Amino acid sequence: MGFDYSEVRAAYDRISPYIRKTPLEESFYLGDENRKYFFKLESFQRVKSFKIRGALNKMMTLTEEEIQKGVATISSGNHGSSVSYAASLLGIKNAKVIVPKTTPQSKVDKIRYFGSDVMLMGKNYDEAHALGMKYIKDHGMTYIDAYYDDPKIYGGQGTVAIEILEQNPDIDTIVAPIGGGGLITGIAVAAKAIKPGIRIVGVQTEACPAMIKSYEDGVFYEEYPCQESLCDSLIGGIGALSYAMAKDYVDDFIAVSEETIAKAVAFMAREEKYIVEAGSCTTVAAVMDERERIGGKNVALVLSGGNIDGQILYELMGRE
Amino acid sequence: MGFDYSEVRAAYDRISPYIRKTPLEESFYLGDENRKYFFKLESFQRVKSFKIRGALNKMMTLTEEEIQKGVATISSGNHGSSVSYAASLLGIKNAKVIVPKTTPQSKVDKIRYFGSDVMLMGKNYDEAHALGMKYIKDHGMTYIDAYYDDPKIYGGQGTVAIEILEQNPDIDTIVAPIGGGGLITGIAVAAKAIKPGIRIVGVQTEACPAMIKSYEDGVFYEEYPCQESLCDSLIGGIGALSYAMAKDYVDDFIAVSEETIAKAVAFMAREEKYIVEAGSCTTVAAVMDERERIGGKNVALVLSGGNIDGQILYELMGRE
Repeated sequence: MGFDYSEVRAAYDRISPYIRKTPLEESFYLGDENRKYFFKLESFQRVKSFKIRGALNKMMTLTEEEIQKGVATISSGNHGSSVSYAASLLGIKNAKVIVPKTTPQSKVDKIRYFGSDVMLMGKNYDEAHALGMKYIKDHGMTYIDAYYDDPKIYGGQGTVAIEILEQNPDIDTIVAPIGGGGLITGIAVAAKAIKPGIRIVGVQTEACPAMIKSYEDGVFYEEYPCQESLCDSLIGGIGALSYAMAKDYVDDFIAVSEETIAKAVAFMAREEKYIVEAGSCTTVAAVMDERERIGGKNVALVLSGGNIDGQILYELMGRE
Repeated sequence: MGFDYSEVRAAYDRISPYIRKTPLEESFYLGDENRKYFFKLESFQRVKSFKIRGALNKMMTLTEEEIQKGVATISSGNHGSSVSYAASLLGIKNAKVIVPKTTPQSKVDKIRYFGSDVMLMGKNYDEAHALGMKYIKDHGMTYIDAYYDDPKIYGGQGTVAIEILEQNPDIDTIVAPIGGGGLITGIAVAAKAIKPGIRIVGVQTEACPAMIKSYEDGVFYEEYPCQESLCDSLIGGIGALSYAMAKDYVDDFIAVSEETIAKAVAFMAREEKYIVEAGSCTTVAAVMDERERIGGKNVALVLSGGNIDGQILYELMGRE
């Protein structure tokens, strides 16, 4: 099991007409005399998430027959919206996004808005997953993986690194959040191929340090018992491909507290003027708590998405 | 006194390597079956304001001798930051931004951050202006106008319209805020040259309806007695060139209440997830209050800047 830079490069050639080359913007407030920090603003990506990169790459490599039979995924979050949007962009008519019956109407509306059918199945994510996978198989559809082990997904996510190093070849350190591990693994593989000396740091929330614990315990945590967290998009276990590869490509793994993540969300909105989801602000939180450990002179912080509930944003901005 | 589309077209060819082609993003929440609304997100422009367009265009047309003698402006706001940033981009070493002595340190730091010298003069804007203009004249520097009557500034601001109509040729209505009038006039002249049937709507805050009153009263209000307003960037009188031209190119002028503007800021952050300064949210406020009057099927709302104080943003998000 593995993938390499050629997969990422091919993905970028494929998807770049459809995605936004998001800005790499220097932070006003985090830097000092020795260090500059740059935000890679995937919060400005289409559908406000990097997930569109992997979804598009996968869906652009399907055969005509696969497209006719249709695509589907199981996700009420950024991946679900991304698959929905990618299907409309590519004119794939048969696209289903399967979500639990308990999904808030606002999330269902959003996925529909991007063009796909939404199917409600099961009363929680596990049930939706079981019923959904059966439905997909029974109908001969192609399942669009979120982060488990599809090299096309990892290749798409890794294109973030190509852009960062094109936008600023002096970047010597990239910090990215870890949920399932697709983004960090894709970025690490691509960045080290382009610039072998580059340092890659992955960040998890202390509420769900599935990858850190996987490596500590030597156990592949496909599922992980998470605590309550602000970081919806980082909750759960990790992917098989990321478990197999991240340890060889990522130089350091840091867990940050929910408290610092909350501060980072407020800092980004109040000072830097970017609305960034909590899971993505883990990279800013890591700078706040572990600046020396991260190191580097020109550090890119990947802000992977911009979907945060308005009321939660407001409350975090009001915390002392 | 006047300018035409050729000025805007030339400006765009000149400045486009330096500016960001900002997204034109469909609103999730404002549209209905009959109408789509699109945000032209100049809040993501470099320096978080459209003002960089005019400043760059002007500064790219200076002679070598003018560059040697230096450039200067008088502004503690988006125009000052834009001149400062444009000077660094273009390698113009002698660049001064003159601001009143009462300017908050954070604003001074920001202008310096972009590279220019900041000179503190006078105890309010009027004194800064008088002393500053004398300094500029005495030193043979080129004054970089904000909105008064320089066609190079108006031409630069008008490039927003070229991008909008390239990004979505179906746009039939453009709504833009009016402060001094450079943006609306530039946009109106350019848009009507590209697409003669297009409708242009200008929006002011009720706290400072200088252009609306100028036309009502038949008086050129170079200065105007404004009430207190959330919209720092829209306060004051209008420019001579905008007064001369806007009435022939702008189809309707709307004044919106400070209360609706406050709601629009909160809506943009909480729902659409964009941090937009209050002056720019006048266009969203106009849709909230005057949807039928604005009309159109594909309506572009120009969100001209993203500089809003974090505490004010927070407080507006908390209002009922």
